[in-house]
Amino acid sequence: MATIDSVQADLYRVPLASALTDSTHGEMVDFELITVRVRDADGAEGLGYTYTVHAGGAAVHAMVQHYFADLLLGRDADEIERRWQDMWWLLHYGGRGGHVTSAISAVDIALWDLKGRRSGLPLWRLFGGYDPRVPVYAGGIDLELPLPELLAQADRFQDNGFRAIKMKVGRADLAEDVERVAAMRDHLGSTFPLMADANMKWTADQAVRAARALSDSDLFWLEEPTVPEDFTGHARVLHEGGVPVATGENLHTLDEFHRAMSESAVSFPEPDVSNCGGYTVFRKICALAEAHHLPVTSHGVHDLTVHALAAAPNRTYMEAHGFGLDAYLAQPLHIDDGHAVAPELPGHGVTLDFDRLEALRA
Amino acid sequence: MATIDSVQADLYRVPLASALTDSTHGEMVDFELITVRVRDADGAEGLGYTYTVHAGGAAVHAMVQHYFADLLLGRDADEIERRWQDMWWLLHYGGRGGHVTSAISAVDIALWDLKGRRSGLPLWRLFGGYDPRVPVYAGGIDLELPLPELLAQADRFQDNGFRAIKMKVGRADLAEDVERVAAMRDHLGSTFPLMADANMKWTADQAVRAARALSDSDLFWLEEPTVPEDFTGHARVLHEGGVPVATGENLHTLDEFHRAMSESAVSFPEPDVSNCGGYTVFRKICALAEAHHLPVTSHGVHDLTVHALAAAPNRTYMEAHGFGLDAYLAQPLHIDDGHAVAPELPGHGVTLDFDRLEALRA
Ligand SMILES: [Mg+2]
Ligand SMILES: [Mg+2]
Repeated sequence: MATIDSVQADLYRVPLASALTDSTHGEMVDFELITVRVRDADGAEGLGYTYTVHAGGAAVHAMVQHYFADLLLGRDADEIERRWQDMWWLLHYGGRGGHVTSAISAVDIALWDLKGRRSGLPLWRLFGGYDPRVPVYAGGIDLELPLPELLAQADRFQDNGFRAIKMKVGRADLAEDVERVAAMRDHLGSTFPLMADANMKWTADQAVRAARALSDSDLFWLEEPTVPEDFTGHARVLHEGGVPVATGENLHTLDEFHRAMSESAVSFPEPDVSNCGGYTVFRKICALAEAHHLPVTSHGVHDLTVHALAAAPNRTYMEAHGFGLDAYLAQPLHIDDGHAVAPELPGHGVTLDFDRLEALRA
Repeated sequence: MATIDSVQADLYRVPLASALTDSTHGEMVDFELITVRVRDADGAEGLGYTYTVHAGGAAVHAMVQHYFADLLLGRDADEIERRWQDMWWLLHYGGRGGHVTSAISAVDIALWDLKGRRSGLPLWRLFGGYDPRVPVYAGGIDLELPLPELLAQADRFQDNGFRAIKMKVGRADLAEDVERVAAMRDHLGSTFPLMADANMKWTADQAVRAARALSDSDLFWLEEPTVPEDFTGHARVLHEGGVPVATGENLHTLDEFHRAMSESAVSFPEPDVSNCGGYTVFRKICALAEAHHLPVTSHGVHDLTVHALAAAPNRTYMEAHGFGLDAYLAQPLHIDDGHAVAPELPGHGVTLDFDRLEALRA
């Protein structure tokens, strides 16, 4: 038994090196980072974290600090499924999704990290092991980038080892999206995997129209064409628009992924391990996708995600995107010829520089 | 324009006069109350509040205090639909339901109260007006009450003017549920509306079996037979179990109510105005139910809810239940021969005794 001895949650506001833009979240200049450190009675420590776009982090922090910490102290860190249920049900009233799953995710990730560190296993091996080399794409957050800079960014991505790229769409004028995607397709060549992300910009009808207008550019997938809960709309884009659809960064429960898959509303499920319920749920989503004969991709926190996808036979391109956490990591993820490589360190192997983060405490 | 001049959120832990019990939340000895007061530049004030079972209130409080207050200051309190969208989208990442809708609810209720007070209209009139007398039932939270006390409680409910009663089911042994419900039916007579609430206790198969076992007691409805997101299970209970099904206290968005209704998973939608998104969403759920030819009931905060149901032509029995807020209200809801009567005071007319609450600050 690995008795939980302390749970520490911290909230930071981390600036971005340059502003990011998409169709819904507007200009992003920083993000909130919520870290959780779980220490057991032997002094072993696990690290988890989650983040928000713009706002909400103080609520996630309050959930861990005010409620989960007391719930976890003295309990067995090794029974992660049980701890997960305890957290889910403690905040079930008013919760059942939303920020609760971000808070649970951070703790769940810390518990898995702790389990890996205690056993000396990197998580991708602990999870079963498939292939430490995970295909990866560069997630550009670039809706407002002028076209020449968009193409220059694509060159930089390739220089940095990426062999697949995603760009933002959803500009006020669809013709501009069509022009920009066509220019990227032309720039990258006909076989280069190119994805586009609308960040919930469109109605279902607008999205079907956009999918058809973009068809010459042969998108690998079109992401979040409508609001996330509009599964009927997503299914229409997929079937009537004739383009594979990715969604998941704004789905927060296994049940929501189940609905998306069973309603034929998604081609590429893309859970975010830091908001879907942690590794525990992410891996169930991988299994669910496998049962639906679907590949699984991801959103955000690639340093953590790589372990889950390195253990999933149905993994496809993992997202690597630019929230500026790299500057605070001991060892940023290594990208090599289109692949991220899951590290051989115990646990997830991610070490944050808490001394440098201290100045960013919110 | 009614410019928002201040937004104040406060968190209290309010003890219950006696412990309440149900099949999932166990023993409840207190609840968290989150109040929101919105004041405009003319000095008019609106009051909203929400609550939690056990835990989570600090997160709801953080959402209002850290994020919504800044968002609302200087904006027009009269454009409630717009303020609602602002709040939803500010916390959309990681949110999209869960505690966000509780936080939005508290602000939304305060804004509607302010609008009512400014215009001198009680909300049920402002909402359109149907009938200030709303049929009401007593929501017993009594799973562990010995049978003689359960029957005595039913007598007290009738003495206090109630003409419909709900009891808890979901004991470890289904035979005990059957016996207790049969005893209540016998005690109340064959035509007295009697509901039963399982609080998510069962699997779908168990719930169908329970519904059939309870069929002789002619339940008005069976509530939350399975976990809320199991709409398929709810539909089975309704159709195979042969009993009307109520659900909604754990559904937090218009979309979730839409799914429940369109999947024929609910006979009595029961939104909670303090966690579904406030009056703004509660009233849309009433309209959605009307379009589905369904009645609409409610959960919790009856002092607030009565205004929404008094304006809904399809309203059925409103829940009155025992969270101990009455002691802090200037004027608890009046129950008269099975009806609650919406007050004629401007806004919702609820006044909390903040001086007495001060001792309960969390
Ligand atoms: Mg995306
Ligand atoms: Mg109930």
